[in-house]
Parts: sequence; C-alpha cells; structure tokens
Amino acid sequence: MKVVAGQEDLYQLSFNRGEKLMSSLNQFAREYKIKGGQLTGLGAVNEVRLAYYDLKTKKYYDRIFNDCDYELINFTGNLTLKDGFPFVHAHISISDHQFNTFSGHLMEATVAILAEIFITPLGVMPERKMNETIGLYEI
Amino acid sequence: MKVVAGQEDLYQLSFNRGEKLMSSLNQFAREYKIKGGQLTGLGAVNEVRLAYYDLKTKKYYDRIFNDCDYELINFTGNLTLKDGFPFVHAHISISDHQFNTFSGHLMEATVAILAEIFITPLGVMPERKMNETIGLYEI
Amino acid sequence: MKVVAGQEDLYQLSFNRGEKLMSSLNQFAREYKIKGGQLTGLGAVNEVRLAYYDLKTKKYYDRIFNDCDYELINFTGNLTLKDGFPFVHAHISISDHQFNTFSGHLMEATVAILAEIFITPLGVMPERKMNETIGLYEI
Repeated sequence: MKVVAGQEDLYQLSFNRGEKLMSSLNQFAREYKIKGGQLTGLGAVNEVRLAYYDLKTKKYYDRIFNDCDYELINFTGNLTLKDGFPFVHAHISISDHQFNTFSGHLMEATVAILAEIFITPLGVMPERKMNETIGLYEI
Repeated sequence: MKVVAGQEDLYQLSFNRGEKLMSSLNQFAREYKIKGGQLTGLGAVNEVRLAYYDLKTKKYYDRIFNDCDYELINFTGNLTLKDGFPFVHAHISISDHQFNTFSGHLMEATVAILAEIFITPLGVMPERKMNETIGLYEI
Repeated sequence: MKVVAGQEDLYQLSFNRGEKLMSSLNQFAREYKIKGGQLTGLGAVNEVRLAYYDLKTKKYYDRIFNDCDYELINFTGNLTLKDGFPFVHAHISISDHQFNTFSGHLMEATVAILAEIFITPLGVMPERKMNETIGLYEI
C-alpha cells in the first residue's frame, strides 16, 4: 500500500495485488493516526468475504466470492474507534465477468489487480459503543 | 438521528432503527441550514421504495422491497434547493441474503438496523428548476 | 455540461441528455486544470460500455448495455495524470427497469436524462505509470 497523496483533508491510497484490503486500511488508520472519516474507492478483488447482518440472531452470515477477479465497483465506508482501535466499516459491490453485481458488508478481500481508495478525515474520532438491542457497535 | 460529528466541511450522521431515511435527511438539511453538498453512506434498510424514471411518460415507476432487512450498500446523493426547500436526490444499492443487488432512485427507506451517512456541504445551495423537455427538476 | 458550483475544495457538475460522460469529465479536468481528486455521482445513462480486466490476457473485455435508460446508481472514480493528460478512472453501477444491477469499469456512457457528479480535488496530481506485471497504468 502506498500513500499517493496525503493531506489533512484528503488521502489517496493505492494498493497492490495480494494485499488484504481491510487489514491494510485499518493499519493505515492506526499508523497515520487518522481521526474518523469517509472512505470511497474502487479496484479489483478476489477472495471476497461478504456478509449480511441478521437482527433476529444478532449474527453476521457470510459467503466467500472467489470465482474470478471481480471488479470492485464501489467501496463505501467510514472510520471510527471501536474497543480503542481505529475500525473501518465498509460495504462494497463487486461484479463478475457477466457484469452481475454482488454486494454486502465487507469482512475482507484480497486485492486482485489494484485498488484505489480515498479517505476524507473527519477531524474527530467518533466512538462505537455496543447497542445490546441490535447487537452491534453503534456510533 | 444523531449528528456524530459536525463541521463546516464534513458532517457524519447516525440513524437508528425505524427512522425514515429520506425525510430525516431532508429535515436535517433544513434544521442545520446545510448549503448544498455531496452525500455518501451505508447501513441496513427495509420497506425500500426504489424507482426508475421513464423519459417517454415523464413519470417515476417504483417497487417496494420488503422481503428482508437489506444491507444498504451505498447511498449516493446530493443536496439542492427545490421549490424553496432543501431536497436530497439519492440513488442506492441494496443487497439481500443471497448478496444479490437491487438499485434505483430512492423514494424512501426505513432504517432496519443502522445507517451512517456523510454530508460534505458545497457552501452554496444550487437550485433545481423544471426542465419541461425531460419533465424533471434539473440543477 | 454545467459547473453548478466550483470551489477549490468541491466541484459539482450537471450533465445534459446526450453528452458523453467520460469524455466530458476528462475535458472538464483539462480545462479547469483540476489536480487529482475523488469523483462520486449519479444520474441516468444509456449506450453504457462496461468492462472488466482480465489479468491473464492483460486486456479489458467489454459489453454495451443499451436496452433501456438505466439509472446510474453510483459513479465512483478518481482523477490522475496518464501519458501527460488528466485521466478519469471510474467504476459504475447501473440498474434496469426491474431494478437489477450491472456494474463494471466504465469505458463510456451517454447521459440519458441527467447526471450529477462531484469532484473533490486532491491538490496534487498523482501520475499513473505502466506496471508491466499487471499490464495497467498504476498510481
């Protein structure tokens, strides 16, 4: 991962084939001490683990997409503090070679070709706290 | 709805289960006197009313998606002035429990679990005016 | 194409029916000398040429979507310098009249009704250089 451009108000990151997208992003946020923020981006990924949250069981259910190198259509996320650490919450859409689209909460994905992500820091670090009613850490 | 972080250049909003996403966003824009802006976000929604616009009949055609709590994959929108009031124009993608994706112009959706939306104010409030050729309010 | 609002930190563009989205955006970047940046947006498009990249053959494979006026659900992109010229790299999702979603790397699309795009300049212009391993210009 390379910080293409880093400014107080907008960072651009470029990821290489083989990198784990979520763990790299969380590591970047820790190292650069980014305070909150909006994430957007695109690229190509494989070994994609998507999930949805079920409110009844209060659990995430996931599926791994690994049939091809998928285009990463849009990465939409935010950065907050969870259990004392920077935490990226992201949803993504991916498309296969028939241009069909699969989407979900992103657990993890491997960069297949490249990935280009922006982070707009918020300036403050919102904190997530457990909301027992929904079973999730809420901002 | 809670304003997680509010600055002149970037607001982060957190919505709770049961809130109407579009009416809450429009209300926020009015109350905080936000001038224009870009919106991005994610979450989980149900009772989702999506639409597409048909240029021939100059009408929106909608369908309600209410088979499950859908992941809100990406909320993409903007804020302008329409008929004298702040107006959010948004398109969204949602995914079901098979990770299939449905998308359209967002009429309204209910927050199923949570929703986390950013607004980057533009500083000026663009106004929409009716363009009779397309039958829509255009910026 | 009209520059709805232009500031150093956020531009909003409004496109009219019949305009070529990618060539218009690249032209805007040249004329306004925009230095890098994040793009997001929505609208409605037809004559949409989507592609995916195949790492084995190092080629893009495309398909034209022209069965209806598609809602442009989300335009996610960035602006860099490639071969000495401003170059927009974008992935999009579109939906048909059944709200099904198709997505890919955007080669070109024609604005079917309108399109509303934001550009957040980065302040510096990242340059793409050929990476022979992947066969693509990488930031």
